[in-house]
Amino acid sequence: MFASIKDILKNPILNSNVTINGWIRTKRSNGKIGFIEINDGSTLKGIQAVINEEENQFSEKDLKKLTTGTSISLTGLLVESPAKGQNYEIKTHSFNVIGETDPETYPLQKKRHSFEFLREIPHLRIRTNTFGAIARVRNKISYKIHEYFQKNGFFYINTPIITSNDGEGAGEMFRVSTLKFNKLNNALSNIDFKDDFFGKEAFLSVTGQLHGEAYAMALSKIYTFGPTFRAENSNTTRHASEFWMIEPEMAFYKLNDNIALAEDLLKYLLSSILNECSQDMDFLENYIEKGLIKKLENVINSNFEVITYTKAIEILENSKKNFEIKPYWGIDLQTDHERYLTEETFKKPVVVIDYPKNFKAFYMKANKDNKTVKGMDILVPKIGEIIGGSEREDDLQKLENRIKELNLNIEHLNWYLDLRRFGSAPHSGFGLGLERLVQYSTGISNIRDSIPFPRTPKNLYF
Amino acid sequence: MFASIKDILKNPILNSNVTINGWIRTKRSNGKIGFIEINDGSTLKGIQAVINEEENQFSEKDLKKLTTGTSISLTGLLVESPAKGQNYEIKTHSFNVIGETDPETYPLQKKRHSFEFLREIPHLRIRTNTFGAIARVRNKISYKIHEYFQKNGFFYINTPIITSNDGEGAGEMFRVSTLKFNKLNNALSNIDFKDDFFGKEAFLSVTGQLHGEAYAMALSKIYTFGPTFRAENSNTTRHASEFWMIEPEMAFYKLNDNIALAEDLLKYLLSSILNECSQDMDFLENYIEKGLIKKLENVINSNFEVITYTKAIEILENSKKNFEIKPYWGIDLQTDHERYLTEETFKKPVVVIDYPKNFKAFYMKANKDNKTVKGMDILVPKIGEIIGGSEREDDLQKLENRIKELNLNIEHLNWYLDLRRFGSAPHSGFGLGLERLVQYSTGISNIRDSIPFPRTPKNLYF
Repeated sequence: MFASIKDILKNPILNSNVTINGWIRTKRSNGKIGFIEINDGSTLKGIQAVINEEENQFSEKDLKKLTTGTSISLTGLLVESPAKGQNYEIKTHSFNVIGETDPETYPLQKKRHSFEFLREIPHLRIRTNTFGAIARVRNKISYKIHEYFQKNGFFYINTPIITSNDGEGAGEMFRVSTLKFNKLNNALSNIDFKDDFFGKEAFLSVTGQLHGEAYAMALSKIYTFGPTFRAENSNTTRHASEFWMIEPEMAFYKLNDNIALAEDLLKYLLSSILNECSQDMDFLENYIEKGLIKKLENVINSNFEVITYTKAIEILENSKKNFEIKPYWGIDLQTDHERYLTEETFKKPVVVIDYPKNFKAFYMKANKDNKTVKGMDILVPKIGEIIGGSEREDDLQKLENRIKELNLNIEHLNWYLDLRRFGSAPHSGFGLGLERLVQYSTGISNIRDSIPFPRTPKNLYF
Repeated sequence: MFASIKDILKNPILNSNVTINGWIRTKRSNGKIGFIEINDGSTLKGIQAVINEEENQFSEKDLKKLTTGTSISLTGLLVESPAKGQNYEIKTHSFNVIGETDPETYPLQKKRHSFEFLREIPHLRIRTNTFGAIARVRNKISYKIHEYFQKNGFFYINTPIITSNDGEGAGEMFRVSTLKFNKLNNALSNIDFKDDFFGKEAFLSVTGQLHGEAYAMALSKIYTFGPTFRAENSNTTRHASEFWMIEPEMAFYKLNDNIALAEDLLKYLLSSILNECSQDMDFLENYIEKGLIKKLENVINSNFEVITYTKAIEILENSKKNFEIKPYWGIDLQTDHERYLTEETFKKPVVVIDYPKNFKAFYMKANKDNKTVKGMDILVPKIGEIIGGSEREDDLQKLENRIKELNLNIEHLNWYLDLRRFGSAPHSGFGLGLERLVQYSTGISNIRDSIPFPRTPKNLYF
């Protein structure tokens, strides 16, 4: 086998022969000496190979093939680089062009491309510095999520993607079906889903939480990490139709424990990428968001402020600020409200708790005032909400009443009520959207650039 | 916070006070001393708490609530257990019943329940020893998959779940749609999918491989770990409609490198669960599959045999065995063929390579004989195929020809051909079905018991 460029540069053995496989990012030549930048994705910068073009073993025909995008295998001596910009380079002995790239038709040119253009070629944009950096940071965050939970005694579970649960208000859902659309008898006002694959209506899940709760009530601490879906027809920079969620759920955890866990997790993840993806983070700082690293360090080094929703509204009302929607007790916080709290009032992450029950999910535990529930949203400067969670209602009677009050389908939720019927216990959890966190961590402003193949309304590349 | 039972037993501090939160598995009493087995899911066995029922602080009313399934918080002294079966127990000072369980209506009784019965209560079956053990082993395998790939320089990527790619023969697909079924105009023989959410037909992905290849052609080594779907109407113990797949894809890897990676990964995973889930594995050995541990050790300790498909057919033809389907060159191997090779001929895992192209996927690299392709299936004793993969066709012209030959939609695959148009390179990968591996590792015979909420035809619990 061969070593990656990252491995070679991590333990460089000077004046040893190395073989690398990768793709040419750039090529320049003064007619005598050629310099090619080779990248294999293992690291942002790749490595420079120097070719003495006048040596006999390099034919003009082969040298001409060394264009951007071409894949090659190259062998040479690892030496210190006399030029600045890199510590090492390869003095080329031989190379083998594996797959050529026609510069005339290759969509990726040397110049910078717009994100809009790159979204039309999601299978190729990963070959750019920006998308390589985002992919490596996303990978690191994903792995560190697993590492964090495993270290802390959580079990990873896969909640179902296809569900008969209709989401109970969490959002519009996609239908999953194998019925032949053009053979449906629409003289009937109601389709008979007995003939459908599952014998009943089926949808793509909007959350793994409810199923996760069932597992938390036996394994105590679990987390999910899987795709979730929203069929909302909203075209914003913050919403995708398919996105990945991490949803921990803990038995015997109350709201305060839940907050402490979320804060600790967030700091762990951000510290990890700053420590372990420094080259990529420096690139993102320089080319995507000035101040990115300081922004993340501020989160890591601050103690999150915990305030009630009522207090938050008070602050907003007294702020004299002209918000798009005037804040008053009873409305959900808007992004500019959230940003005011984190950026102007507290200048650090803020955890808002005890929201009015009317705009929060049915399963949140009621407070004694019977007006608010034990929800929590973690807000960070620049983007607002990054985590949403709650302590769950563990009282059977109260939960039943709330379901009826909201006119939800209690038959569908009977299994969920079983968790309160048999050995109920306080439990809490939250949801962390992976793409939202990747956006925040990389500074990339559009969610479409935080996931390899984004899905949004009327937009489905392959 | 409180410690898990696992943590307490890992570093036991004798004669210290401990507080545990969990659920009662069993309770027995001789009228003076009560013994309750408490489990919090962190470990198979839980811990025994001893209650001196004659002490004043324990009211008869509270003691009566200590029934199977009830959740409690209990504090007491950690002491050595005089009884056999456990090293430690808790001498109870106080307990607090959190959530009661009515023994009359609780579906889980002390007796052993059938798997069929338990499948009807997937939200509660996790409270049994068997499903707890399976969940912990599944968790360990999942994490070790990430650990293995991360250690070896692979990047985790999320390929899309919703896709416009129609799978190209990999299997029947579920449609994803937001069209209102009962408003479709079926006077038209063709529905206009311009009105559907994505403006075109959309399906649930059967594989992440094709999208994964795009990322491998930039990052070199990637892996996916996500749900995949099959809408086949097959009711077997080995097929689920929704299952999780791990699909690594490596640029510059040829078939032999691919085989070596798969063998190494499999051994790493099986070693990990034997080393780190020994209590659960012992339980599964005793109650689910006698010989389980030896079976797995045999895989770990053997060098996988690599044979061509042609050789495999030769062995089968010469075997004098009465197979359900008579083996001859050109047919796909059946499970009993595969088991003969692994269990009777080689008595260890067998890697079959160079299959006839006619029953393998279009993207597999053609051999020079133009009859066979560089596919590989890894077969293990007892279940047959556990991994399937190949070196991919990296020659643009050959791949185009094969797509046309098979009458696949070449327009849909144009992006995939780009990967061969621009900087093509040899690359390989494989798919490992998580549930199949969980079945194999736990000895559980039905795939429905290897995943928390199984989805199969006409079967969709919540």
